[in-house]
Amino acid sequence: MHTRQELEKVHKRILPYIHKTPVLTSRLLNELTGADLFFKCENFQRMGAFKMRGATNAILKLSQEQQQKGVVTHSSGNFAQAISLAAKTLGVPAYIVMPSSAPKVKKEAVKTYGGNITECPPTLKDREETAEKIMRETGAAFLHPSNDLDVILGQGTAAMELLEEQNDLEYIVTPVGGGGLVAGTSLAAHFFGKNCKTIGAEPFEVDDAYRSLQSGKIETNKTTNTIGDGLKTQLGDKNFPIIRQYVSEIIRVEEIEIIEALRLIWERMKIIVEPSSATALAAVLREKEKFRNRKVGIVISGGNVDLNQLPF
Amino acid sequence: MHTRQELEKVHKRILPYIHKTPVLTSRLLNELTGADLFFKCENFQRMGAFKMRGATNAILKLSQEQQQKGVVTHSSGNFAQAISLAAKTLGVPAYIVMPSSAPKVKKEAVKTYGGNITECPPTLKDREETAEKIMRETGAAFLHPSNDLDVILGQGTAAMELLEEQNDLEYIVTPVGGGGLVAGTSLAAHFFGKNCKTIGAEPFEVDDAYRSLQSGKIETNKTTNTIGDGLKTQLGDKNFPIIRQYVSEIIRVEEIEIIEALRLIWERMKIIVEPSSATALAAVLREKEKFRNRKVGIVISGGNVDLNQLPF
Repeated sequence: MHTRQELEKVHKRILPYIHKTPVLTSRLLNELTGADLFFKCENFQRMGAFKMRGATNAILKLSQEQQQKGVVTHSSGNFAQAISLAAKTLGVPAYIVMPSSAPKVKKEAVKTYGGNITECPPTLKDREETAEKIMRETGAAFLHPSNDLDVILGQGTAAMELLEEQNDLEYIVTPVGGGGLVAGTSLAAHFFGKNCKTIGAEPFEVDDAYRSLQSGKIETNKTTNTIGDGLKTQLGDKNFPIIRQYVSEIIRVEEIEIIEALRLIWERMKIIVEPSSATALAAVLREKEKFRNRKVGIVISGGNVDLNQLPF
Repeated sequence: MHTRQELEKVHKRILPYIHKTPVLTSRLLNELTGADLFFKCENFQRMGAFKMRGATNAILKLSQEQQQKGVVTHSSGNFAQAISLAAKTLGVPAYIVMPSSAPKVKKEAVKTYGGNITECPPTLKDREETAEKIMRETGAAFLHPSNDLDVILGQGTAAMELLEEQNDLEYIVTPVGGGGLVAGTSLAAHFFGKNCKTIGAEPFEVDDAYRSLQSGKIETNKTTNTIGDGLKTQLGDKNFPIIRQYVSEIIRVEEIEIIEALRLIWERMKIIVEPSSATALAAVLREKEKFRNRKVGIVISGGNVDLNQLPF
């Protein structure tokens, strides 16, 4: 269904609008894990997260006519910022539906990137209805943060670049939220790696993806009590089949393990990453035996944190 | 007195033992300052600070016989860690005198890097006496964190590398503490820049270097009430003459400006830097007119922060 050529086309399409982010290594973290780690630093991506890739690809795939009418999404996180900045860069109007409860810093960030915010009550139903109203009024196209093939393929380009730089990786580990990143990564690992397995990392508190792979159908979360605020969402019908086919397993981690991994990355690598991103290193630390002496890619998903809300 | 060749020799000498750190740029910080900024990221240096350069050079300059007896320093900060790691790398014993009041994290870091700690009461007199006692007993050589020519030349190699990558800088701004970094930087700017001026950045709270340049003699600080914990020390007779000759000016900044600059670097560049390092960006923000449309190098001195003691 998907092809190597398709991913290459996506990468070429978005390349003028994204940063080719660096791959960092850390002697200390290699010693600590016993593995050879290669961190693909999407925290240095434009607007601070990999979501810039998928958002850019999805907007570029729209027709000229559709681009003039604009795009709409409902998100309180990085995708709202990504759509805002990608749309601004491409001269496309962006309408962002945000729950009134969203943190002020997130609203400010969307405004900085030029997105038009419409606030709504903080339920999924209200968000969807508000987005639909905007679509009717403006003709804007709805873009989903993770359950959209163009978004998924865009997210996969981070792992493509990682494998371009380090083509002998045996594993790539990414956090799992809505499933866009891990699905895109698994396609990239399949087409550009040499027997490179994709592993998802997920908090126990929101282990819907783990349970979905067990049961064979999309499961939901009863609580969202995790520090990985980008990981609370569930899989969708577009990314779940890809994940079933190409992701070899999901490793679940405790909240305390995420915080410890977060601290290690901040203190040892001197880079700012989001709690969600630390989930991947936490998984490697939790299952040391699996990764010992292996070459392991880790996708650092983003670096947008509220410095007033740190877990340290 | 000093020569271009001397600096080149120092750089060649230490190169196998240090990281060649990256030079980062930030579109957002360029927009905010109106200048073209080039950040030399010594927070990514081994042990997390530029001090690794001077420590390595100073130890390598000792005779074989002296290296066997070891080195001693009194410091509660990055230099203690730098001497410990450089000495360990070179197979040299390192004795570190630390005030009993030093934060536990700093003691732990020195131990991790293999330094032998001797604690003493927290006065300069006690520190000096304890260091002298160790010198008598072990024959170890004393190394000063900033008032030592080999240390100064070592620190200058960061700016050498910066100018190698970006040879048209009009200014290089560094924080000023004991004076080793700014003195070494000014020599590098003089010998490797094209009319590149060196500017020091110093907190108003500890503006001894500013006052020293005014009065023509080494001034001391009455208080040490600054968040820039690496900047509390005073100049010495080895670096002051260099600073007088080659540093064009010192810009002083308020504590609140340092914290704002720190936050900007963390949030916008997604890198962890020490409060001391943020002083340089604070100086550029404070004197925007001077730097507008100029190419400005900024030496990010280090990234060792206690995450439990953040000013946010």
